[in-house]
Amino acid sequence: MPISPLIEHLVESLRCLPGVGPKSARRMAYHLLERNRPKALALAQALNDVVQQVGHCTRCRTFTEGEQCVVCAAQQRDASQLCVVESPTDLEAIESGTNYQGLYFVLMGVLSPLDGIGPADLGLEMFEHRLDEGGIDEVIIATGTTVEAQATAHYLSELVRERGVRITRLAHGIPLGGGLEYVDSSTLAHAFQRRMPLE
Amino acid sequence: MPISPLIEHLVESLRCLPGVGPKSARRMAYHLLERNRPKALALAQALNDVVQQVGHCTRCRTFTEGEQCVVCAAQQRDASQLCVVESPTDLEAIESGTNYQGLYFVLMGVLSPLDGIGPADLGLEMFEHRLDEGGIDEVIIATGTTVEAQATAHYLSELVRERGVRITRLAHGIPLGGGLEYVDSSTLAHAFQRRMPLE
Repeated sequence: MPISPLIEHLVESLRCLPGVGPKSARRMAYHLLERNRPKALALAQALNDVVQQVGHCTRCRTFTEGEQCVVCAAQQRDASQLCVVESPTDLEAIESGTNYQGLYFVLMGVLSPLDGIGPADLGLEMFEHRLDEGGIDEVIIATGTTVEAQATAHYLSELVRERGVRITRLAHGIPLGGGLEYVDSSTLAHAFQRRMPLE
Repeated sequence: MPISPLIEHLVESLRCLPGVGPKSARRMAYHLLERNRPKALALAQALNDVVQQVGHCTRCRTFTEGEQCVVCAAQQRDASQLCVVESPTDLEAIESGTNYQGLYFVLMGVLSPLDGIGPADLGLEMFEHRLDEGGIDEVIIATGTTVEAQATAHYLSELVRERGVRITRLAHGIPLGGGLEYVDSSTLAHAFQRRMPLE
């Protein structure tokens, strides 16, 4: 018999978080109850706020609490470049790791017919509409390297090519600072085949 | 510039959970937003419920939403045995791992003068009061093996001994199923010194 049904329910609810199993969920529940009740209430409030107020940007589909995200709303961004990413985390990684000044389009997933995820779920009509509006000189495909992501990249490239817009993708190869011995063989083979002239 | 201040706030709030750093917190926040908004709301509700409704048992100090916990309220438990544990998790471990039928007293911590945790914080007045009520034949000390926990056990044993009640503590030694090579040297030395006649 559980000591407290409410605590059991909290433990069960915490397991919806990725990477949290039954033992960590229990540790989290007791930690909050014993040491940090005000923070538990603050977390509850933050969850409610985010679910109720955060929606999708009407231009690029990333998460935002307004109608447009800060990138789309910024006047000084270069509207001639459009970078297509899988998720808002990828957008943030590019924002914080590069000095890219163009705009984004966030697919919020990849094409996956087996899971029933088709072009409509990725907002590709909206993507085509943006291409047809004109003013875009380059589409940068920054999707991942899974099979689904590569199929998605191929599908996107067809849409872009039909409209005669320049299309690029991120370079693949050996990560900076990584020794050759730690690189998987397919990356190494790719990097070897696509070797560049030394400048 | 963060894409969404509300998401940043949720990421910050998730970091109050033990074992959750900035990267996992961000992954959790996006996971909830992208895939599991209803579960995020359920988690917020569970947190609110627990903080508002779960208090301490008036007999043993463990967590409960009623006045007394299910163990203290049960009629068939043996009131002559009282097991002292550090935390509700320890109580649950004993409940699920042994067939102990007595009652508990939960310290909700250990004596730690450096952190300002004294006898009053562990409810030791309540503990003495329970001893003085009579009817207890054996006090089982089931605190941990940290220096603070051992000092606490010593302090408790003085209180119990003054009243002429039998006092026991859990056996220390080599864990069942553990090879000698994996046991730390102080446990091994203890187990060797306290060797038992083979029955």
